[in-house]
Amino acid sequence: MVIGVDIGGTKIAAGVVDGDGAVLLRRERPTPARQGAAAVLAGVAGLVDELRRVHPSVGAVGVGSAGQVDSARGVVVLAENVPGISGFPLCRELGALLDLPVSLENDVSAAALAEAHLGAGRGARGMLMIMAGTGIGGALIVEGRSYRGADGVGGEFGHMPLTAMGGKRCPCGRRGCVEAYAAGPAIAAAYAAAAGAGDLTVQEIARRAADGDRRARRALGGAGRALGRAIAGLVNALNPDVLVLGGGVLGAGDAYTAPMDLALRESALPACYAALSVRRAALASDAVLVGAALGARR
Amino acid sequence: MVIGVDIGGTKIAAGVVDGDGAVLLRRERPTPARQGAAAVLAGVAGLVDELRRVHPSVGAVGVGSAGQVDSARGVVVLAENVPGISGFPLCRELGALLDLPVSLENDVSAAALAEAHLGAGRGARGMLMIMAGTGIGGALIVEGRSYRGADGVGGEFGHMPLTAMGGKRCPCGRRGCVEAYAAGPAIAAAYAAAAGAGDLTVQEIARRAADGDRRARRALGGAGRALGRAIAGLVNALNPDVLVLGGGVLGAGDAYTAPMDLALRESALPACYAALSVRRAALASDAVLVGAALGARR
Repeated sequence: MVIGVDIGGTKIAAGVVDGDGAVLLRRERPTPARQGAAAVLAGVAGLVDELRRVHPSVGAVGVGSAGQVDSARGVVVLAENVPGISGFPLCRELGALLDLPVSLENDVSAAALAEAHLGAGRGARGMLMIMAGTGIGGALIVEGRSYRGADGVGGEFGHMPLTAMGGKRCPCGRRGCVEAYAAGPAIAAAYAAAAGAGDLTVQEIARRAADGDRRARRALGGAGRALGRAIAGLVNALNPDVLVLGGGVLGAGDAYTAPMDLALRESALPACYAALSVRRAALASDAVLVGAALGARR
Repeated sequence: MVIGVDIGGTKIAAGVVDGDGAVLLRRERPTPARQGAAAVLAGVAGLVDELRRVHPSVGAVGVGSAGQVDSARGVVVLAENVPGISGFPLCRELGALLDLPVSLENDVSAAALAEAHLGAGRGARGMLMIMAGTGIGGALIVEGRSYRGADGVGGEFGHMPLTAMGGKRCPCGRRGCVEAYAAGPAIAAAYAAAAGAGDLTVQEIARRAADGDRRARRALGGAGRALGRAIAGLVNALNPDVLVLGGGVLGAGDAYTAPMDLALRESALPACYAALSVRRAALASDAVLVGAALGARR
């Protein structure tokens, strides 16, 4: 029995996960995001203790955390949504507090691991996961293991340039990143500029598109196409056999996904596209903690 | 003792490579590129036999081939420059002919393996190699092994889109690929369009840039910046700790490499750029056959 923990910007969730990846018991509480590392640590330890009272045989804890994570050293390098834990040696401190081995993984990588082993990516030799919502991120799973680069800070697919120079301003401060074209805020901004409307949610813009609003269709279509182009680049570079798509923006419907699919098909090289299976993420919101538990089991 | 073979569009080179990666004896002959697989096979076998006459103790052959290669099956899937061997089960047929085990690797991956073990990438945990010449390609080396994706047909970094839609026509038939902005023919075309000159070599354009020709500087600068942007995207996605740059276009001098370096620094995320060591390829033209021999030794 292993406990998986999901440290996000708004809540910490923890669950007892069995050998089949099933969540036997689950608890959550708000993340003390603006407080220091000690408060976050206490929050995680409190949840783990609650769960251990019911399942005393827990042998390890796996944590999936927002931000850039150095899994080898067990440190959250930089977490913009949970600033208190940036630079904090989470594995060592939490392990000492709980007297249990603790492993650490980026949250998107943890979710991707869960998809690879239990969800949409089962059987994949090389799985690329792309999450598109407020931001764009993802993970690469090679032969069942997450690959985030030499220092574990890769997977920043949202910040791949989609212009030869210049381009739209990205929340990261740079110009021309795919996130500046394809994420939720970019869709809202494009629609607001075209329709003179205030900032609407992607869901509302998608509803308008479904009702025949051409400017809504155009805002969603341009964003979807940009994401499809960026994914095609990754498919040409990394030749995954399974592409798993998740995140709120993917729920915007055909007005977003049809141009995305078309751009992917047109911009991917035939040999890379031929073997590619495109699937929607299959696991619900527990994917991060389940994947973190899978990581701890190793 | 292992023999490494480099099958390129114009010549086949083969060499006896010792345990330290030194080439003890080397032979080459023209590639019968427009003839069938049997002619290429006979060419390779002829070279291997010449070398074996001098070094009878050879225990394996490693082949690095142009084109998309399925290393696991030992098949060259598609080789545009050596069409005869496309789809040919090279490992099996060559192995039977020589009565030796034969391994197969993409030529850029083989060169990257050699750089990782013996050249500019020594000590890298994650090495990205980018070759920029007539085309743009590359390879990813993870913990000393080449990674080209689920079917071995990835590494097509030249065909990552650098536009959200449309863009310059690429030799591959698509639009907006980085190769359409940053490779040799793109530089020649940009200069020809600006200066009204005929198609010049990159070397000649670089010479004019060094002599103060602003249009030459602009053609080289735009291309270098585009390559820097594309590399930054890969650095953000894959977080290599060593970037190895090679290929003829990289020899065009500061007018190309300074804008490339600047774009890379500006477009890479700080955490990904901080740990990155950028190096020039260190091995000469034997890198492919040496890398192929390294692969065979495994």
